[in-house]
Amino acid sequence: MIEIERKFLVASEAFKKEAQKSTQIVQGFLNTDPIRTVRIRIKGNQGFITVKGIGNESGTSRFEWEKPISVNEAEQLLSLCEPGMIEKIRYEIQSGKHTIEVDEFFGQNKGLVLAEIELDNENESFLKPDWLGKEVTGDPKYYNAQLSKNPFHLW
Amino acid sequence: MIEIERKFLVASEAFKKEAQKSTQIVQGFLNTDPIRTVRIRIKGNQGFITVKGIGNESGTSRFEWEKPISVNEAEQLLSLCEPGMIEKIRYEIQSGKHTIEVDEFFGQNKGLVLAEIELDNENESFLKPDWLGKEVTGDPKYYNAQLSKNPFHLW
Repeated sequence: MIEIERKFLVASEAFKKEAQKSTQIVQGFLNTDPIRTVRIRIKGNQGFITVKGIGNESGTSRFEWEKPISVNEAEQLLSLCEPGMIEKIRYEIQSGKHTIEVDEFFGQNKGLVLAEIELDNENESFLKPDWLGKEVTGDPKYYNAQLSKNPFHLW
Repeated sequence: MIEIERKFLVASEAFKKEAQKSTQIVQGFLNTDPIRTVRIRIKGNQGFITVKGIGNESGTSRFEWEKPISVNEAEQLLSLCEPGMIEKIRYEIQSGKHTIEVDEFFGQNKGLVLAEIELDNENESFLKPDWLGKEVTGDPKYYNAQLSKNPFHLW
């Protein structure tokens, strides 16, 4: 399917008080190429394998295919991944009828906090909380696959 | 899991008369790197996503993880694969208690025929039919991922 998403920097920690849920995520990549990204993720007590294609020009929409797998399978596959594991906590925040996902990164990407919002179409409007910062949709530097190779602490 | 396999060239077409079964296979790769190969396959009316790791020194055993997916999912994922689709017919031939899989390649690899036998351990013996040719176990040139980049017609 095609995923339509916009991505933003996060300007303050205020989002944490509004979060309904937070989940530990560890992920690695079997391919970091943006035209055929293959991601292995453990999110809470569930594993996933995800394939992403190249985005459209604005970077808003991207082919995405995902399959749940067991944590044990995900652990085995993580051990095959490229160096540069991503560790983060994902917070879910309700904003009007949308859910904003905020990722607080750790390890090599400590200090980076990114927000993502999934939309039904590119022009759909949504409520912007005041802790939402600069938009970075489509900037490959903020793709998690790129963060695994060129992490925030090197910027 | 770890797969233990030996691979051989095929010296004649005699295997076709002994085949119990033949199935059309189309496959592509989201990553051809032998240390983290990601393969998308349509075999008959079933799709698969498969991840393979690096083999041991002799090339006999290799980590392999596979998940069935729908043909529709496989078709979408094939469109993201690296150039160099592999097309082949797989014949299954019973040889004593083992099944030998013989792949007859088409397209860019037309003329190549390879046999594979899965074993319980590296030293397990098996019945060798007289159409089995030279052993090529562990020769990366014969990995399907390599055949997609450097096909037989270029050798």
